This record gives sequence, C-alpha cells and structure tokens, in this order.
Amino acid sequence: MPERAIGVFDSGVGGLTVLKELRRQVPGENLIYLGDTARVPYGTKSATTVLRYAHEAARFLLEQKVKLLVVACNTASAVALDGLSESYQIPVVGVIEPGARRAIEVSANGRIGVVGTEGTIRSGAYERALRRERADVIVHTAACPLFVPLAEEGWAGHEVTRLATREYLAPLLAEGIDTLVLGCTHYPLLKPMLQEVVGPQVRLVDSAQETAKAVAAQLSTHRLQGQAQPASSPRYFVTDIPDRFERVGGAFLGEPLQGVTTVSLD
Amino acid sequence: MPERAIGVFDSGVGGLTVLKELRRQVPGENLIYLGDTARVPYGTKSATTVLRYAHEAARFLLEQKVKLLVVACNTASAVALDGLSESYQIPVVGVIEPGARRAIEVSANGRIGVVGTEGTIRSGAYERALRRERADVIVHTAACPLFVPLAEEGWAGHEVTRLATREYLAPLLAEGIDTLVLGCTHYPLLKPMLQEVVGPQVRLVDSAQETAKAVAAQLSTHRLQGQAQPASSPRYFVTDIPDRFERVGGAFLGEPLQGVTTVSLD
Repeated sequence: MPERAIGVFDSGVGGLTVLKELRRQVPGENLIYLGDTARVPYGTKSATTVLRYAHEAARFLLEQKVKLLVVACNTASAVALDGLSESYQIPVVGVIEPGARRAIEVSANGRIGVVGTEGTIRSGAYERALRRERADVIVHTAACPLFVPLAEEGWAGHEVTRLATREYLAPLLAEGIDTLVLGCTHYPLLKPMLQEVVGPQVRLVDSAQETAKAVAAQLSTHRLQGQAQPASSPRYFVTDIPDRFERVGGAFLGEPLQGVTTVSLD
Repeated sequence: MPERAIGVFDSGVGGLTVLKELRRQVPGENLIYLGDTARVPYGTKSATTVLRYAHEAARFLLEQKVKLLVVACNTASAVALDGLSESYQIPVVGVIEPGARRAIEVSANGRIGVVGTEGTIRSGAYERALRRERADVIVHTAACPLFVPLAEEGWAGHEVTRLATREYLAPLLAEGIDTLVLGCTHYPLLKPMLQEVVGPQVRLVDSAQETAKAVAAQLSTHRLQGQAQPASSPRYFVTDIPDRFERVGGAFLGEPLQGVTTVSLD
C-alpha cells in the first residue's frame, strides 16, 4: 500500500512555488497537487465564493486519502483556513501564518509591508496574523492585482513590471517598512524585481519557503513523516484541461510538468 | 405582462460596454445582464470549459424568457456561438461577426489587426470571420492578457498601460495594419490609449458598438422590436456577490450600477 500523500491545493499554478519548496524540504513525501484552473483566480472573488471552492477542493483531496492538507493559496488561506481546520480530521497548513511569523522574526523596526491579491488584502488576515505575533507591529498593505497576470505572462523582468511594482510599492516604502511579505504564491517569480525596487535594506519574506518549513514541523508533531525514499513524482489534478497549466506551470515549478489529470469539483 | 427582454451575458463586467451601447442604440428594449463573476475570466480557460459555462449562462437567461441572446464576451462567442445558436430557439448574437464585418468595411489595405484574450486569439475565430467577408484579407493577431486586469485596475491612462500596449502592438504595427479590432469587451475602456499608440492612421473597431447594431438588425428581421417607452432599468445578475461588480462595473457602464442579484449557475 503506497504511503499517504500530502495534498496541496491552489486556485491555479501559483501553489506550485509551495510544491517546489516541499519537494526540497520534505523530499521523502508523496505529493498530490490540485489547481482549480476552471475557476482561477480566487483573488478577485468574494469570501463566500472562495470558501465554497476551498471546501470542494479539500473534499477532493480527502478522497485521495491525503494525510495533511496545504492551502497553497493566500486568498483561500485568508478566508477558509479556520473553517477547513474545523471541518476535517487532518492537519491543515495555510500560507499566511508561516509568512507572518517569519516577518516578525526578521523585522528590526516593526514596520512590515504585505503585498497580495485584492481578496487577501481585503480580508485583513495578514494584519491579524502579524498582530498575534507582535502586538505593536505596524502593517502597511497593498493589493497588487497586476502581479499575477504579469507573473503568468512571463514578464517578471519586463519594464512594465518594474513600473507597476514601483507604483504599488511607493506608499509602503514611504512608510519606512524594512520587511515585505510576498502574500501570494505567484509572487516568488517576481522576487528579483521586487528586491530591485525595494532595495537591499528591505527583507523579502517568501511564504512558499516558510510554508514548507511549517509543513515539516507539522509532520513531525503529528508523527506523519513519510519514508518514501525516493518519493514518487507528484500527481497533478486540475479542473480545466491541462494545456495552460502545463505550459505556465513549468516556470513556477522550475521544471517541466507532466501527467496532469482533469477532474470536476462542482 | 412585461415585454420580453434581451438577455446579455459575459464572464464579468466587460459585457457592460455592450449593454451600454444597446441602451443607446435600442432604447426601447428591456435588458437582462448576467456576469459569471464567480468564474471570471473565460479568456485564459479552455474551449471545453468555456462552452460548458456559456450553456449554463444561456439556460439561466432562457428561464428569464429572453427573446434574444447576446453573447457579450469574445471568448464565449469564439467557442460557443454556433453551439448556442443550434441549441436554442431564439436568435443568438455574438460579438465577433459584427466587429469582423465592420473591419472589412473600413480597411483600405486589407491588413487587419486583432487584439483579444488568449482564448479568443487561440480559437482563430476572428481570422475565420474576417476571411468569410474577404478571402484575401491579411490578419495579424495578438493575445494581450494584461489588458483586462489593466482596464479593471482603472489604469487606462497609466504609463504601465502605455508600455504594455506598445509591447503587444509593435508586431502588428510592423506589419502595416490599417485597422485594429478590439476583440474583447473590456478593451473599449483602453480606446484612447490604443489610439494614441497605433496613431491616427489606424482605425479602431469597437465590437461593442457593432454588436449593438447587429442586435438592432436582428430585432427588425425577426420582428421582435420592443415598444417599452421608456424601457425599464436593466436587471443585473452575477454569480459572485455583487460588491466588486458594482464597484468596477460602473466604469464600464458609464454610470453607477444598482440592483444586482446573485444567482448560482452550477
């Protein structure tokens, strides 16, 4: 009988940055990825709708007998994490807490910036998570709706991206932030440009890396570590046909994507 | 008994540019608008998925007893128009044929550019529609995935939009087009910038205006003209909660949006 896998879900390709980190940090684990590509993006949709989609995705992964669920989407983590944790018997890890904790660790002046989708920023989830860690933290947020399409367009190094980044980050930089949380799983692709625009004095916190660390810790706490040596290749499921996911996703995963299956959630 | 309405559907707010033109060109008609905001955008999704969504939207509008259906979304028109026309008993008008016909009328050199979403461009629907009108037409297309988020961000006049427009259009301009079809219902918001970038020698064809003309013609052909004088206010339905639709949609409609109801299609 194969070892139970970790289930990872996102609205689309963005969560592949988390999957990539999981493969690096917990290489003995089998992984199942679900991208809800027929309904992507979640970032511009309401909490009510995202909550429904998140439960549908979680139920699909539970049918695959996953032992731990990773909500590799900031918008879904922001609005659905508590509900998912209460509804199901397995550990559920989101992407917001780990990034927030790390930001508090690295910030010297307690002024932290957060960039994310409209849905994530509007939810206030990062402010709450940061304040739980440090009550007197000062948080400045910016919704950056163009970052996802820019990352998917492959324009990470383009002048258009530089200009948009400057426009979005100017108010945060004016507030003297020394730490910037990348509050969307698409944003690691824009890291070099973001670092260039914010300058070397501002630390970037990549929630994909921090989430993989949190998963490793949860596996240890719950004695759920996999012993697959080596683990089998990740299995990929999407809700639209695989074409675009395979094409765009390769850049997020850092290697070609294969063996993607279409499933229906609704 | 109220007069039967025209049903207009789009993936989100973009089709409001068509609704606006309908109100101007056929002011005596009652209008029902449906935006599939829980699953927007269609432009990055596969033909299979968009076809399913289009039929679900059409069935909802038919339940509202509409007398004519306007597919106010280029992506849905590109992949679903024939299927919808065959499936239902009422006239169905898409946004592609009207724009293509107008482009052939205004082009002097027979070199026509088309900009649209990934889905619309990949479908080849504009090439086919243009060739049906004029066999020797030379068509150059460009998918412009950033135009929709730029329009929705309210950055129509922003330097970021200018740069992105130059990048997308340079290959088309190098081919000597004299006409450019705006093959997405979001793009009329970007018209001033597009005109600035292509220069005064290139004619822009706005499919929203042309589609409203085609609807007027169909109403006349089928003797379906409304006599509502004045027509009642349009009724708006969306699949996500109304907030964002009302906020962003006002810019597309050119006036505040009110009375939006949420419905479920799936």
